[in-house]
Amino acid sequence: MLIPGNAAIGQSGGPTAVINQSLAGVIDGLRESGAGAGGTIKKILGMRHGVRGLTQDDLHDLSDIPTERLDRIANTPSAALGSTRDKPDETYCKRILQSCQKHDIRYFFYIGGNDSSDTCRIVNELSDASGYELRCFHIPKTVDNDLMVNDHTPGWPSAARFVAKACMADFMDNISLPGIKINVIMGRHAGFLTGAAALARRADRARSTDGPQLIYLPEVPFDLERFIHDVATVYDAKDRCHIAVSEGIQDTDGNSIGAMFIQGETDAHGNVQLSGSGALGDQLAGLLKAKLTPEGGKPPRVRADTFGYIQRCFPDASPIDQREARGTGRFAARLAASGDVDGSVAIIRTSTAGPDEHYASEFRRIDLADVAAKTRHMPEEFIEGTNDVSQAFLHYARPLVGELPEFDRL
Amino acid sequence: MLIPGNAAIGQSGGPTAVINQSLAGVIDGLRESGAGAGGTIKKILGMRHGVRGLTQDDLHDLSDIPTERLDRIANTPSAALGSTRDKPDETYCKRILQSCQKHDIRYFFYIGGNDSSDTCRIVNELSDASGYELRCFHIPKTVDNDLMVNDHTPGWPSAARFVAKACMADFMDNISLPGIKINVIMGRHAGFLTGAAALARRADRARSTDGPQLIYLPEVPFDLERFIHDVATVYDAKDRCHIAVSEGIQDTDGNSIGAMFIQGETDAHGNVQLSGSGALGDQLAGLLKAKLTPEGGKPPRVRADTFGYIQRCFPDASPIDQREARGTGRFAARLAASGDVDGSVAIIRTSTAGPDEHYASEFRRIDLADVAAKTRHMPEEFIEGTNDVSQAFLHYARPLVGELPEFDRL
Repeated sequence: MLIPGNAAIGQSGGPTAVINQSLAGVIDGLRESGAGAGGTIKKILGMRHGVRGLTQDDLHDLSDIPTERLDRIANTPSAALGSTRDKPDETYCKRILQSCQKHDIRYFFYIGGNDSSDTCRIVNELSDASGYELRCFHIPKTVDNDLMVNDHTPGWPSAARFVAKACMADFMDNISLPGIKINVIMGRHAGFLTGAAALARRADRARSTDGPQLIYLPEVPFDLERFIHDVATVYDAKDRCHIAVSEGIQDTDGNSIGAMFIQGETDAHGNVQLSGSGALGDQLAGLLKAKLTPEGGKPPRVRADTFGYIQRCFPDASPIDQREARGTGRFAARLAASGDVDGSVAIIRTSTAGPDEHYASEFRRIDLADVAAKTRHMPEEFIEGTNDVSQAFLHYARPLVGELPEFDRL
Repeated sequence: MLIPGNAAIGQSGGPTAVINQSLAGVIDGLRESGAGAGGTIKKILGMRHGVRGLTQDDLHDLSDIPTERLDRIANTPSAALGSTRDKPDETYCKRILQSCQKHDIRYFFYIGGNDSSDTCRIVNELSDASGYELRCFHIPKTVDNDLMVNDHTPGWPSAARFVAKACMADFMDNISLPGIKINVIMGRHAGFLTGAAALARRADRARSTDGPQLIYLPEVPFDLERFIHDVATVYDAKDRCHIAVSEGIQDTDGNSIGAMFIQGETDAHGNVQLSGSGALGDQLAGLLKAKLTPEGGKPPRVRADTFGYIQRCFPDASPIDQREARGTGRFAARLAASGDVDGSVAIIRTSTAGPDEHYASEFRRIDLADVAAKTRHMPEEFIEGTNDVSQAFLHYARPLVGELPEFDRL
């Protein structure tokens, strides 16, 4: 079932705390098929900075990497091979295919999000059309958790763990001094990561007791007047308010609120810059200060933090996420070695989400077209009203982030 | 040596990851002296929101708090009693003293930074003058690490641990995609916390290999032209640059660079708002983009994150910091119980800082006037040139932050 030749692995898009687990997983799986040890699969090549490196012959031979070192790299956040945000068009993809032919690459593994799976799909179609046999696999990765079919995506549980822990601690900080605190959280157009802020609440407590009290998701049109009213209501009752806001919030017409404030760039995929700036938080804080100052009185204390890049790479990964990220890589390599010619790997939950869930999942091969360039959003049953997530979301998310610290208060 | 009456404990200023350890430590020490169990020290009272709560009779009886619960609270970040930024003047301090008399408080413990130690000093002087016997103790706390006499201050090692881990991971993120990354770090007018970013470098590696490559401390006058030149030099050589900037950087005239950008407030201590806004990072990023865009070319990818409040409360405290924070509280209670009438507790390092240091420290009673309202800065031997910390600083800081993760790269 194996075809003789080399295997190449690339990483693409925003790095995560576990994307190197997936890299290690592919290598695990290829080695189990005899790769690099005089087997049919000869070399395991790493693309430096994804397809950009591949087309520039910038490849790193990983065939002989010792297992111990591979494990250390797997436990290192960010993309060890380097990443890229290039969006290959037809010409670019032809160069990718030429590079594969030049380097005798017959197995192509690409770890990334929905844009990366689309790159993978195009390369696969080109190789089919050209008659050059290339087994093309996409391995899921994104802290946004916005890939179709997947129950969740490697990278998100670890980022969600950071968001939950940061919000737990920051809520304690907020109740120690009166005031309003806004935390801006990643996730682009999907609210999963921002929703994870709700994990900061103790399981048996309402948001009136435990913050964040207000959560704004990109799936719910953001209305400035309603936002001010929401915050004023909590602040009037409690002299404080803890708020989680997605970087991707949009108005009713789908215009990004953040993009209005960030003098940023648009990448090759047409994505506008939402991260790497505190502008959205600062603008919302300024607005609240202005609107909630009583006549002739002092403005409330309003602070905004933007969690930024730290949330996607903080070295405190969820154990389930580490295991699954590695597993998706190994599964893709096994699919390729056992004769499958293309596909993506999806994580499917096999247990039933609920308060007493004993979490279990499995990997499944799905068609590239099922994930390529599509965006999954928070389903309706995960959203509660206009400013919160539901219990169903908490049941979904809680088992994935690992154990959280236990706090107590007077 | 004991005088009959109650003890009161308060927490003041910005919370930390270990300030509740100090609270628990005072209770430990008082209980060892028989407090709350029919002993001479009758009740252990917690001031809600520091002296503000004391003057409003808002006290929480902690005498019977179970040890197990106390340990959980000790491990919870932020100030369990609530904090305050009130700056008591003469009138306010008289009210504090009246409240002490009203509630038969004979032992006064105040956990906080340099402003809080000054509050403590004034209350102590007033009680002396009035003839009301009050034993007044300050217990050190501040992530800024800017208290005099102390080798370091509880709260800083844990915040430094967060900064080191965040910078380790963020540097990996930075090398995975080309570009310039600015991280803005707390610390007000002292560079200790920003300097901790250098702990992200592996011990045996130069900053040319491991980031951050540039570190800007408030102790070194910040020059925009030199900053742009520094970044351009690294960026030209490496196509990337990783930068740590203190929120407290100042120009040669001592004007805060951050305060120029943040439309913020001034608190009761006259401190201007430096945290809770992304403005400084955003402005520096905008400046670099404008200045480093080649003629007719594309601007470099520049991103800024402001670590914000998360760095002072993230639930991943340094074990040494937890132990010492608890120890300072217990030590103050013992001083009070053994007849000392006032003072502050200082942490003194008894080992010699160096690469092979087996770290050891002890607690010492110092006069309130030695710390009150004074600010310690990074000593010259901790600073290297205009944009880095020295090896001496790394030897000083490394043993305090606890074990850091081990990363590897290709």
